[in-house]
Amino acid sequence: MPELRQEPLTRRWVIISTERAKRPQDFKPKPIESHTGDCVFCAGNEEKTPPEIWAYRSPGTGRDQPGWWVRTIPNKFPALGIEGEMNERVNGLHKTMNGIGAHEVIVETPKHQVEFFHHPVQQIEEIIRMWRDRYLDLRQDKRLKYIMVFKNEGPEAGASLEHAHSQLVALPLLPKAIEEEIEGLKMHLKATNRCLFCDMVYQEGEDGTRLVAESDTMLAFCPYASRFPFETWIVPKRHEPDFGLISENEVHDLGTTLREVLVKFSMVLGSPPYNLLLHSTPVNVHIGVSYHWHIEILPRLTKTAGLEFGTDIFINPTPPEVAAESLRRYH
Amino acid sequence: MPELRQEPLTRRWVIISTERAKRPQDFKPKPIESHTGDCVFCAGNEEKTPPEIWAYRSPGTGRDQPGWWVRTIPNKFPALGIEGEMNERVNGLHKTMNGIGAHEVIVETPKHQVEFFHHPVQQIEEIIRMWRDRYLDLRQDKRLKYIMVFKNEGPEAGASLEHAHSQLVALPLLPKAIEEEIEGLKMHLKATNRCLFCDMVYQEGEDGTRLVAESDTMLAFCPYASRFPFETWIVPKRHEPDFGLISENEVHDLGTTLREVLVKFSMVLGSPPYNLLLHSTPVNVHIGVSYHWHIEILPRLTKTAGLEFGTDIFINPTPPEVAAESLRRYH
Repeated sequence: MPELRQEPLTRRWVIISTERAKRPQDFKPKPIESHTGDCVFCAGNEEKTPPEIWAYRSPGTGRDQPGWWVRTIPNKFPALGIEGEMNERVNGLHKTMNGIGAHEVIVETPKHQVEFFHHPVQQIEEIIRMWRDRYLDLRQDKRLKYIMVFKNEGPEAGASLEHAHSQLVALPLLPKAIEEEIEGLKMHLKATNRCLFCDMVYQEGEDGTRLVAESDTMLAFCPYASRFPFETWIVPKRHEPDFGLISENEVHDLGTTLREVLVKFSMVLGSPPYNLLLHSTPVNVHIGVSYHWHIEILPRLTKTAGLEFGTDIFINPTPPEVAAESLRRYH
Repeated sequence: MPELRQEPLTRRWVIISTERAKRPQDFKPKPIESHTGDCVFCAGNEEKTPPEIWAYRSPGTGRDQPGWWVRTIPNKFPALGIEGEMNERVNGLHKTMNGIGAHEVIVETPKHQVEFFHHPVQQIEEIIRMWRDRYLDLRQDKRLKYIMVFKNEGPEAGASLEHAHSQLVALPLLPKAIEEEIEGLKMHLKATNRCLFCDMVYQEGEDGTRLVAESDTMLAFCPYASRFPFETWIVPKRHEPDFGLISENEVHDLGTTLREVLVKFSMVLGSPPYNLLLHSTPVNVHIGVSYHWHIEILPRLTKTAGLEFGTDIFINPTPPEVAAESLRRYH
């Protein structure tokens, strides 16, 4: 079983794959798997993946058969596993938990297609619905505390298969990065009696210099203290902690806005590698403040190096105002 | 002037290069600069760098002339600048500081040589003395609060020039990652009345399963909750917050142990890219606990992807016990 280990100095948690331990010879670089007719995510190859968890498919087609348009399967090499006992133990300085959780792959299309922004908007909406459905299903497991949907696009952003897919990791604890967000929301609430994200939406909308795209219910902008060049956040205008409660209007607008941002990336930056993160409120735990779900898109144009890992201070060579202006120009 | 901007949600600081803003076309990938006879760091090309700050050189040789064996120069594209007023301002949600600080490059050898572990031990000792001398000099500037020496080796770790060099960044604030370390040290001190690093040295020495190398005054081990495969820390056995007060014995042992660890990396992993971070106590600020200086070496064999940036939880596919055992085997 994988282990969650806590670093005693910073109290950061780390997932250690104790079972299929990678030994030195396993780190030889290998090229990203390309389409050779036997891509495991393509329709027709369903038997090459673990049995499907959930799929949107045509009536009359069977599980693990073609006929689906979005399909969720367990990760073949999961970082965390759903079976086993919750168990926390301490040995001297070292705190350890069993690696209970879930690690799923959302295959975004049955065709061998690489880039997210090539999906038609209706398909993106279906992918968003699948993210929501998996989020709502997994949180019924009361052991789980945080569910993150994310997407790694391009090998520099950590993708190892080129067929368009996103991932979901469900964790038995509250990650430190989310605790910090909650702390920031609480401080702002205490000081102003308002939600920080709602204030951000208002201030970015008024100011306009960092605005990238806007629809009825969504605002896309480059955050003032962007860590990455061309970093873009999509924040719903309606205050809602819980991504599971996204409305059908918002699904549509998020699909349109997300596609628009990624088309702009492609036009301005030539389809850069990126990580997409969906942040929602923690599950099965009382956090004492009302979260505001949102999406962060981090283009990976610079290398994260010594200063960043040593101090958590990122050097961003492109001011977000310059980035947003370039992105706004294409529509 | 570069700006330091604070993210209102997580209160992380980011350095924004507002002057030489990188525009989209500047992100076309370029190969690492290789030796073409005109490497700016090579002896004989001193006039191609900004004027030197400090160098160890033979008597009778002049500033910015050959005859040096370790040479410190300003970074040609500094993340922070030493000139200007300290100035903090707030606009709505946005907190900003002038980018006051220093960014220096330590050229580790006059010859065109790529890898740190090819330096003779005496040369490594001289590099360590240069790190110490620059640290001691810069902290006389009372505006500076934290000084980090680091090294990016290999393009995947952020190096853009191949000639062996390290860097130093001096910051006008306490980075969040260091505040977290200080918090961890305080918690441990309160609970046990002891230094966490001293306890780590004792526990890792007794346990032995994560030990990599040892000398009279230094212990090298893979930390229990390693974020990166083969991550290795070198911690002095003597409790000392301040790297500036390293003894001559410790300079020698650190040189030997650092070289030994990097030779092991080369044997076991084939000269992997890595970041090396030198953590010392903050300067010109009272932190309320006694720090313990140390070095962290982070091999960059895996990609940092969506889960890591979204949650701060790293997936490490190599248990540190497995990594340490592989590294111990070569000596």
